[in-house]
Amino acid sequence: MDHRGRQERLRERCEREGVEGLLVSHLPNVRYLTGFSGSNALLLVAHAGWPTLFTDSRYREQAAEEVQTAAVMIPPTGDLWKAAGNRAARLRRLAVEAEHVSMAQRARLLKHWPQPPRGLKSVAGWIEAQRAIKEPAEIAAIRRAVELASSVFPQALKKIKPGTVETAAAGWLEYGLRRAGGEGLSFETLLASGRRSALIHGRASAAALPRRGFVVMDYGVVLAGYASDMTRTVHLGRAGRRARAVYASVRAAQQEAIAAVRAGAPAAAVDGAARRRLKRDGWGRYFSHSTGHGVGLEVHELPRLAATSKEVLEAGQVITIEPGVYIPGWGGVRIEDMVLVTERGAEVLTPTPKELLEL
Amino acid sequence: MDHRGRQERLRERCEREGVEGLLVSHLPNVRYLTGFSGSNALLLVAHAGWPTLFTDSRYREQAAEEVQTAAVMIPPTGDLWKAAGNRAARLRRLAVEAEHVSMAQRARLLKHWPQPPRGLKSVAGWIEAQRAIKEPAEIAAIRRAVELASSVFPQALKKIKPGTVETAAAGWLEYGLRRAGGEGLSFETLLASGRRSALIHGRASAAALPRRGFVVMDYGVVLAGYASDMTRTVHLGRAGRRARAVYASVRAAQQEAIAAVRAGAPAAAVDGAARRRLKRDGWGRYFSHSTGHGVGLEVHELPRLAATSKEVLEAGQVITIEPGVYIPGWGGVRIEDMVLVTERGAEVLTPTPKELLEL
Repeated sequence: MDHRGRQERLRERCEREGVEGLLVSHLPNVRYLTGFSGSNALLLVAHAGWPTLFTDSRYREQAAEEVQTAAVMIPPTGDLWKAAGNRAARLRRLAVEAEHVSMAQRARLLKHWPQPPRGLKSVAGWIEAQRAIKEPAEIAAIRRAVELASSVFPQALKKIKPGTVETAAAGWLEYGLRRAGGEGLSFETLLASGRRSALIHGRASAAALPRRGFVVMDYGVVLAGYASDMTRTVHLGRAGRRARAVYASVRAAQQEAIAAVRAGAPAAAVDGAARRRLKRDGWGRYFSHSTGHGVGLEVHELPRLAATSKEVLEAGQVITIEPGVYIPGWGGVRIEDMVLVTERGAEVLTPTPKELLEL
Repeated sequence: MDHRGRQERLRERCEREGVEGLLVSHLPNVRYLTGFSGSNALLLVAHAGWPTLFTDSRYREQAAEEVQTAAVMIPPTGDLWKAAGNRAARLRRLAVEAEHVSMAQRARLLKHWPQPPRGLKSVAGWIEAQRAIKEPAEIAAIRRAVELASSVFPQALKKIKPGTVETAAAGWLEYGLRRAGGEGLSFETLLASGRRSALIHGRASAAALPRRGFVVMDYGVVLAGYASDMTRTVHLGRAGRRARAVYASVRAAQQEAIAAVRAGAPAAAVDGAARRRLKRDGWGRYFSHSTGHGVGLEVHELPRLAATSKEVLEAGQVITIEPGVYIPGWGGVRIEDMVLVTERGAEVLTPTPKELLEL
């Protein structure tokens, strides 16, 4: 991972924006810039010299091992904001990540940073914008996470049968991810069956899988820090006419959105491709979320693929394409792949088939 | 759960502190006051009238189902801070949870709240202080989570054998929790073996369990919103003299700390009981964290049981007691139970035995 290059681009951004440094407090951003994966850290990137990583004594060995491109400082008091404020004493214009600094942290910083408060500049998305375009090593890491998650799917289907409790089915799937080496889950597994499959955010519940109906499985794994995200929907028992029609429409919408992906395409156009198809098939009003989002060190990153998105896709972005139809009281279908944006189109990273499975 | 009583106590606090309302942004606090368990919400508790819960359209049905003691408002724009700022327009002194409001959120609120910014009062811990003392229904919920987690332990031991990869062993344990109905994990399972058992925060890794050495397992489950937290350390192969001595000392320290628990005892004294024992046995310098913490809707709550704690224990608190010894390059032991503070002492909630197991 090119930590130095990332830091350099951030320094250039600081210079362009007229600040002498950025205090990074969002942990995925700290990891992106230094490789540090601990759960407590601040990173001060100033216009000159090495960045300074502040963490606590639990992470002494881990920081020494992971961080090659920043000085590591472990304040004896454990007060990272105080240490950072002191360290930044001579910077007159200091940027902070406004979305990732609490009012209490800001107060602590201002107490120990000797410059006038107006020197503090609220910024957002500087590092996130960099992170949206993946380096080859990142794409390779994401590929491994996606492939791990996909490899577990056939095995996971063994517990998808009438009477299995949703949490148990989700647990079996998660066990597969762990057995295959997953460091953790990208997010809480969504596994919703029967009428519950109409819940867009249907966490596995105490409900038993029905004899007949859809089962939506939306899950992801973290591997070497990078997240995966995929959804498949299967049908227990024979799918009726309406179920087949909905599934076919979602599948076509997903395919048409993927076909619209390429560097230079507006994100809103990709969203529009899925939405148009579902509308034409008569399900438009049942698709109430956006079509996708970037994935990387976090499972939700830039760009966002929604009707209102202003972004234009760029080569090297890794995104999800995940249209769905959710009919309250009846059920729902979502199909989601991860996709690499290329100059000429899209490479679908998720190898799991998308034919309707009746179990 | 007594949502009305909780809201009433909060209103009294607002009155005492001279504010006309509190805007609650920490989700476990929102849940505590209303029962709402969604992942996006703000709650405005004003001096009069019902509180207002703001959430987004994904949670329309869920909010209607879960929330009986607040008005639910779903702003069409999805901008909860704007909606809350407008709704609070007439409050001149409004408290916010300074640890749970980002600088960006503060700016959004101030843009839509028509009062002068100095009317915004940073506060911390108002609801957390209430939450530290559990109601009977909460204690019952915690008991169920603790018992679920304990019930899975014997089964989990089946995969604790040489050659099993740590993530697979952790995954098997987690599967047991899910199969038994767990909604999720309280935190990332820590499972560290051999030399890695000396890592206080040893997440399951790609390392294989050794033929001989300690395996520390620290895990928890969420059930009906309430967390559990327990640690057991077992030994693969026959434990040598030092391993037995360390284990016996940690076990005694844990027992002595539990014996020091009762309403009215200083938290620091409970910490001191564990620390004193480990020191006397010669392991004092290898116990580098605090002895315990409260558990409830979050896995880390008040009170904190550390050498520097100022708190005095109160009946109805639920805490962990978890001393440990971590010898770098050799290994470590931690034993952790959840304990209910009572007037006369402590009730250990975790039923799992603590004898040294050699597998």
